[in-house]
Amino acid sequence: MFPDGEALAPAATAVFTAVLTEGPISRVALARRLNLSSAAVTKAARPLIAMGYLEEQAATERTGPGAGRPASPLAIRADREFFVGVKITGDELIGVVTDLRAEVRTSAHRRLTATGIDDVLTQLGELVNELLGSFRPRTRHLGLAVSGDVDHATGFVRYSPFLRWHDVALRELAEKATGLTVTVENDVKALTTAEQWFGEGVGADSFALVTVGAGIGCGLIVGGRLVSGAHGVAGEIGHISVDTNGPACHCGSRGCVEAIAGADAIVRAVGRPGVTFSQAVALARSGDAAVGAVFARAGDAIGSGIAAVANLVGPSRIVVSGEGLSAYDLFEPHIRAGFQRQAFGAAADCSLSIRPLPFEEWARGAAAVSIKALVAS
Amino acid sequence: MFPDGEALAPAATAVFTAVLTEGPISRVALARRLNLSSAAVTKAARPLIAMGYLEEQAATERTGPGAGRPASPLAIRADREFFVGVKITGDELIGVVTDLRAEVRTSAHRRLTATGIDDVLTQLGELVNELLGSFRPRTRHLGLAVSGDVDHATGFVRYSPFLRWHDVALRELAEKATGLTVTVENDVKALTTAEQWFGEGVGADSFALVTVGAGIGCGLIVGGRLVSGAHGVAGEIGHISVDTNGPACHCGSRGCVEAIAGADAIVRAVGRPGVTFSQAVALARSGDAAVGAVFARAGDAIGSGIAAVANLVGPSRIVVSGEGLSAYDLFEPHIRAGFQRQAFGAAADCSLSIRPLPFEEWARGAAAVSIKALVAS
Ligand SMILES: [Zn+2]
Ligand SMILES: [Zn+2]
Repeated sequence: MFPDGEALAPAATAVFTAVLTEGPISRVALARRLNLSSAAVTKAARPLIAMGYLEEQAATERTGPGAGRPASPLAIRADREFFVGVKITGDELIGVVTDLRAEVRTSAHRRLTATGIDDVLTQLGELVNELLGSFRPRTRHLGLAVSGDVDHATGFVRYSPFLRWHDVALRELAEKATGLTVTVENDVKALTTAEQWFGEGVGADSFALVTVGAGIGCGLIVGGRLVSGAHGVAGEIGHISVDTNGPACHCGSRGCVEAIAGADAIVRAVGRPGVTFSQAVALARSGDAAVGAVFARAGDAIGSGIAAVANLVGPSRIVVSGEGLSAYDLFEPHIRAGFQRQAFGAAADCSLSIRPLPFEEWARGAAAVSIKALVAS
Repeated sequence: MFPDGEALAPAATAVFTAVLTEGPISRVALARRLNLSSAAVTKAARPLIAMGYLEEQAATERTGPGAGRPASPLAIRADREFFVGVKITGDELIGVVTDLRAEVRTSAHRRLTATGIDDVLTQLGELVNELLGSFRPRTRHLGLAVSGDVDHATGFVRYSPFLRWHDVALRELAEKATGLTVTVENDVKALTTAEQWFGEGVGADSFALVTVGAGIGCGLIVGGRLVSGAHGVAGEIGHISVDTNGPACHCGSRGCVEAIAGADAIVRAVGRPGVTFSQAVALARSGDAAVGAVFARAGDAIGSGIAAVANLVGPSRIVVSGEGLSAYDLFEPHIRAGFQRQAFGAAADCSLSIRPLPFEEWARGAAAVSIKALVAS
């Protein structure tokens, strides 16, 4: 909802979205891109300029040799509004404030001493207060990201294993606790939205983000839309089985990608009492061949799972990231090898970005969902 | 293109599509379904009624207790136009004539003695002549289905392994050979279109069709659209690896679904000199435990591959069919068991139809693509 209390016309939403994700961009290019007349673009942009969300940049270039009028591109006024994003994990709240372009302006976090909803709401209220500071007057929206089964439309967390929440009306409760307009989304989907609007997925008709950490998740964009699954399940790359005779998985099957490449699975496969994931990483880096082989097998399983995504859906690009990729150097060659072996024909042309994920990116993803909710409202 | 040589307005296309796939349907229901005004529906339907594609049925029911005017549902005049569909395989042409609702009215086939494009075109011309008979005056469209890498937009067959064709301008050549307006599509995509418009996929936002035979293929509908893949590859369920240590696949990897469950793979796994696929089916049915175990393993691999589709994309329904399912009784319980084991959480709720595929259904799929090309032109 915009300050004047009205929703945008469809053309205005299209113009706002295009300038936000691809701008600065001239009216001529916008009209071509959105299949609108120049007059329609000008009309659609007017209220957005009046409200201060868009501005005309100084004319710097001419549209072409024969063009008499210089082009004045439309650009976002990124400082017009700020957004709070918070990722809620089982033991921590991580928060950021971003501008309209999802650039992080400040961040903060707090350890959670308890995960009951009332305790979390109290801590959330305090964290938001701490974050807002001088951003308060221009901040109206809070995005929350939670792992598990989240209903974005209703703001309900149906089930979150790490928080042990069942059917929590998180949006409503968080709005009461903070006074902000709240959006709630699954954490992997939030991160995927951030990539689609502000990252490597901009302009891609199809795109996948794979997260590697305690679990192995995947957000999928097909036809420009986030895939949700008719039965509420999608992107469960972690439970594709790549080895019928592989290790048992908590889902009841065997040889799932997560049962080979999840952080716990790696610790279990290393099999040395007391050795944690970080210690396993250190051992592999120091040249321990047996531990290195565990990471190699894990990377290969991830690559094989990613190839399944490429073979089935054929996204133009796949980003692999997540906490697990702090061990990027150990995983990467094996992810690529498994992918190349298993991608079928031209599916191997899919571009693969493999990179670490700073933890506050999760909170930025939550903020991106609240930006999208404003723009596409 | 319609008889008057003009394309339809977008609203008319929407009305035509809805009546064709979901009709008979009242104007009131159409307006609600398409988010159009009643006046817009009436205006959109007018030229379609004038050209004889739609008709008003006799009013049989009233729209509600308070409604004064009885509803006259709009229905398709299925006999208004006929469509030829031909599937071209490595050794046969299978052809049908369907009406506008893709109901088969007649069928015919011919053995191919050679697969060079000129020979195939000669045979195609003869088959089409034979099929048309009394349908000729009302038939203008021919749909062709070919396995392999087909560019529907340009009508080029980029590569078809069974026909050994590279970069054949099939649409153009077939239009010259038959005088009909031709559409060309990959065979699995054609079958998927038939299911989406006239079969179990009607009304589904997401839907998958898996074909089991010499190869294992998959057509995917997501967000109402056929998934094509940014790099031209999609639906390659046959090359998802379910067993790292499984049999070698012609794609260069190991343990692909096709390397376990394709017809050749089954013959190889049975491993008895001279025993064909049909003979293997007969042996398994007669109680040969070793051969039965080969089908069990194949069915399980298919189920596991289908679960990968459900876990990643979450279609509302999956249909499993194809020549291989002539051995339906041997495969089915194992497909279901593999699927149930590997589907994650609510993904297991995806409804699974497993049924044989009469070979002429492939030709009907080709006709369905030409119907869609007319309606959505
Ligand atoms: Zn699993
Ligand atoms: Zn293969």
